[in-house]
Amino acid sequence: MESPIITYLRGVLDEFSELRDGEPYPVNIPGGAIDPDDFAIALATVDGQVYEVGDSDKEFLLQSLSKPLSYALALSDLGTEAVDAKVDVEPSGDPFHEMSLAEETGRPANAMINAGAIAIASLIKGSGGRSAIRRIVDTYSACAGRTLRTNGRAYQGERAISDRNHALAYLLSSVGVIDGRPSAALETYLRQCTVQVTTRDLAMIGATLANGGTNPVTGVEALDPQAVERTLSVMMTSGMYDDAGDWVARVGMPAKSGVGGGIMAVLPGQAGLAVFSPPLDQHGNSVRGTATSRRVSQDMELHFVRSARAGRSAIRSTHTIDRVPSRIRRTEEASAVLAEHSQRAVVVELSGDLFFAGTESVVRELSDLPDDVEMAVLDLRRVNEVGPLALSVLPRTAERFEAEGRQLILVDPDGLIDHAFDDEHTHTFDDHDLAIIHCERTLLERYGAESMPAEVPIEDAPALAMLDADDLRVITALMEPVSYDSGEVIRRVGQRFAGVFFILSGAVSTIASDAEGNRFRLSTLSAGMMIGDLALADTDRQETTVKAESDTRALLLSADAIATLEADDPELAVRLWRALAREAYVRVDAHARAVAARIRETAP
Amino acid sequence: MESPIITYLRGVLDEFSELRDGEPYPVNIPGGAIDPDDFAIALATVDGQVYEVGDSDKEFLLQSLSKPLSYALALSDLGTEAVDAKVDVEPSGDPFHEMSLAEETGRPANAMINAGAIAIASLIKGSGGRSAIRRIVDTYSACAGRTLRTNGRAYQGERAISDRNHALAYLLSSVGVIDGRPSAALETYLRQCTVQVTTRDLAMIGATLANGGTNPVTGVEALDPQAVERTLSVMMTSGMYDDAGDWVARVGMPAKSGVGGGIMAVLPGQAGLAVFSPPLDQHGNSVRGTATSRRVSQDMELHFVRSARAGRSAIRSTHTIDRVPSRIRRTEEASAVLAEHSQRAVVVELSGDLFFAGTESVVRELSDLPDDVEMAVLDLRRVNEVGPLALSVLPRTAERFEAEGRQLILVDPDGLIDHAFDDEHTHTFDDHDLAIIHCERTLLERYGAESMPAEVPIEDAPALAMLDADDLRVITALMEPVSYDSGEVIRRVGQRFAGVFFILSGAVSTIASDAEGNRFRLSTLSAGMMIGDLALADTDRQETTVKAESDTRALLLSADAIATLEADDPELAVRLWRALAREAYVRVDAHARAVAARIRETAP
Repeated sequence: MESPIITYLRGVLDEFSELRDGEPYPVNIPGGAIDPDDFAIALATVDGQVYEVGDSDKEFLLQSLSKPLSYALALSDLGTEAVDAKVDVEPSGDPFHEMSLAEETGRPANAMINAGAIAIASLIKGSGGRSAIRRIVDTYSACAGRTLRTNGRAYQGERAISDRNHALAYLLSSVGVIDGRPSAALETYLRQCTVQVTTRDLAMIGATLANGGTNPVTGVEALDPQAVERTLSVMMTSGMYDDAGDWVARVGMPAKSGVGGGIMAVLPGQAGLAVFSPPLDQHGNSVRGTATSRRVSQDMELHFVRSARAGRSAIRSTHTIDRVPSRIRRTEEASAVLAEHSQRAVVVELSGDLFFAGTESVVRELSDLPDDVEMAVLDLRRVNEVGPLALSVLPRTAERFEAEGRQLILVDPDGLIDHAFDDEHTHTFDDHDLAIIHCERTLLERYGAESMPAEVPIEDAPALAMLDADDLRVITALMEPVSYDSGEVIRRVGQRFAGVFFILSGAVSTIASDAEGNRFRLSTLSAGMMIGDLALADTDRQETTVKAESDTRALLLSADAIATLEADDPELAVRLWRALAREAYVRVDAHARAVAARIRETAP
Repeated sequence: MESPIITYLRGVLDEFSELRDGEPYPVNIPGGAIDPDDFAIALATVDGQVYEVGDSDKEFLLQSLSKPLSYALALSDLGTEAVDAKVDVEPSGDPFHEMSLAEETGRPANAMINAGAIAIASLIKGSGGRSAIRRIVDTYSACAGRTLRTNGRAYQGERAISDRNHALAYLLSSVGVIDGRPSAALETYLRQCTVQVTTRDLAMIGATLANGGTNPVTGVEALDPQAVERTLSVMMTSGMYDDAGDWVARVGMPAKSGVGGGIMAVLPGQAGLAVFSPPLDQHGNSVRGTATSRRVSQDMELHFVRSARAGRSAIRSTHTIDRVPSRIRRTEEASAVLAEHSQRAVVVELSGDLFFAGTESVVRELSDLPDDVEMAVLDLRRVNEVGPLALSVLPRTAERFEAEGRQLILVDPDGLIDHAFDDEHTHTFDDHDLAIIHCERTLLERYGAESMPAEVPIEDAPALAMLDADDLRVITALMEPVSYDSGEVIRRVGQRFAGVFFILSGAVSTIASDAEGNRFRLSTLSAGMMIGDLALADTDRQETTVKAESDTRALLLSADAIATLEADDPELAVRLWRALAREAYVRVDAHARAVAARIRETAP
């Protein structure tokens, strides 16, 4: 199925093909005719997907589109301060060929006008046996993700008509902005302008800038992230020559144009947009390119004012831990303790990004928790990206919690923020259930010491609660004591039904496998609970592995004992099976309610 | 607990209190001394939270901070075109008092320099008995969320030293930019500059702009959203006078300063930041205000290049519908059909925002689905915000799906996108389970007509599958036929255990209530399944309401019949209870696996 985004771009291409204003820049190449009808649009995302329509494989000259790339390279090489000393970052509002230098310092206003770009070219040095221009072309190639080349004939042609740029180079030298030979800087500059790209290349270069300088397909870091950030800022105010204000108001993306007919716009963090169409307006910007950029920005809401609207709140829900309890089967007494004190432990479920707005809302939520909350579980499983504010203020919040005798607990399986926390004082879990178990245990220790006896006597097992004392005595007499060390496997998948185990002390896990063979924990069972019940039929096999999580003692009502009981006292056997069936249905009901609650809860 | 954001802001305040550069603008008010030590920072979020430190309740003059507000008011009144005809949107790079008009048109470069602001003041007309300045002050007040006032003495003082602005007003009149009396425009302008605000007010005004023109606390739409968007664009390129480029590079937020010592910066969609400190640098911007803005932008990543990084992918998971099946209990045959054909129906679970990047990834995912996928469920329950691209391309995707004989099905309980779809051809559900049921039914109709018999004979009921033919005959003889009309309530909460119902045809729902008394559907049961099992004990009461979803026939094994069986043939009763227990444990196992799968899946 064709992507609707391709369909959309083709519609824009068709519509603006009708635009016939403007004249191409007359390239001074023998035989190098420009076709004013060439027209292409390409959109590349930061995960490397490219959408392209029209003549997107036709090569054209980068021209001034080279300026931001060389600027970013100079910033990557020398750092902000050294580059700033030679070239300012102020919008000039002047045409690209203006001979404008600052009165006092002689600094060009910015790197997007010719004076600034020639000064930048002089800052890029050769290294490791590569000339300056070689390094420049290699960097552009790394941005595009393929090897680009300069056009020697175009260079000769441009050089022949570069009196004005020669003058600029010498002027820059006269005021000390260019240190070396002015003609060398000019040659580097003129050559970088003749690098040939396709519209697809240009979109990929845009996506590389959107991606902080790393090509999304090759994964090569072509430019330093901070250099890219500064370059995009300068493109925002000065990228479109004296049309910059209108561009920001109508398109709202950092952008650059070249007289070769290309326009590149960058949506930071998301995409690069490239348009190629040679006829230019009076500002030197591609007529169709400008119209296309405006339209696509508007239709896709790429304008910076709109694209930043995200992550208003990172909190999906805040609830006490009894809303989604652990999968540990608790005794009635322990359940009652947890129910009574559940407001002391809350889960704050986050989603989206933890940048300013998200972090602010989380910090506010944590600060506003009622005084009787003793534990707050910060569930980061649905968080995508984390900014520095979260990394600085959340650990501080954890310290305050601790000073108040409270705990901040993280569920952070991807390690998004836990590295910023002090290990000694913060509990971090990969698994939501384990964090809840931690809270439940803490609550039981604090508020229900008597409710968590080391041993639950057999007569208190909920599954046998329906039986009277006489029945219980007979059945208990049929059981045999068993014990397991921590870590020991009690039952393995495929084993025959051995009987029902009533846990007296300790805890066991049941472990299952999914279709891909990955093992995962189904449930954790503690004293008072029973195991073996999932294979409660003599023809059936054990479907899960059962493992002792701590030293465990249990009573086993074996398959043989059950058979004996059924033969000797069928009426008692009826009552036993009925008790077991009832216990099973209580659990079915609890499960159904938990699932229904989860489904209702995930609905926003 | 004090918010760490307050702690953070206090740290910045303390640090920059040491900055002693700059001189306050000498206000020409008798007795109106400026205290150079005044210093305050306030941050207001788009949901109305304000963080403030320092002298944040001290009033000062808006001065040039009035310019973007009046510009947005003029744009709200007259629209972009009419305002553009008088004032351009290009950065001037000039100091605020520059007498710069365009050569050909006489238009001021932008509304942030004095010439532009005076022209804008002339465009705002009185209406409804309110003068222009009254409407301006009312608008500023609506932005701040409290009644603001002009300072008459400051106005007189400013007026006395406004020769240059007088000259500008007459110059603008001479070139036709001002239509009315130049002195009236100037008076309006000078009065708007003397509106008094606190730092808290200024942050709230910033939050109003961040919020598209609607005050986050009062909910009043003070300014038109499109006017605000354009104003923020102009602030981005021209808000900080001739320091604009450096501001964009280092702070990266649309901003405006005033010689009264205030600076306001706006993070679209998230927050407004305000700083007040009178000493100014040579550009006329508050020294501490600039330093604070830089620091806060960097620490909190408010720069537009960074803040836009969000919503890279909106897809949480794509899986076939058997991963989280409906809660309908299916016969083994129907389950087999669904298992065999589940790859024909997939769920695409979304989260985050559907702006450009999110929408692009969704459209790509849908376009790339294998050819044998007949139904795609788009689950929007976790989506926060939706942009226009999603509203245009997703319905187009649905049309293509339909043309190919496939279905796009929406789970969209908040109605985020379903209004953009053609009702006749798109299935929309509020409930995830209902969408899955729709897919399962469609699959069963297409691939399993024989597997969905109108009636499941009692001997095929899975719960009785363990019994041999003789046992089954005896037990069936104890059952009585019952039937219910669609919608009829079969069992009510609190009724005594009536026995076990084996459904022969039709479907029933079990309905429970949560702690708040809200009723919700626990499960839907079809032919072959049994009900009543959740109250399988003679002392127990019905805990759910059971309702016929269609005309339903069943066989009832009543409580009395069970008692009779237990008395007459305890050995058969053992086998019956054992069969029922086993069925229950099969369901416990299925539930535990479903919950474990869900928990593993929600972990990223």
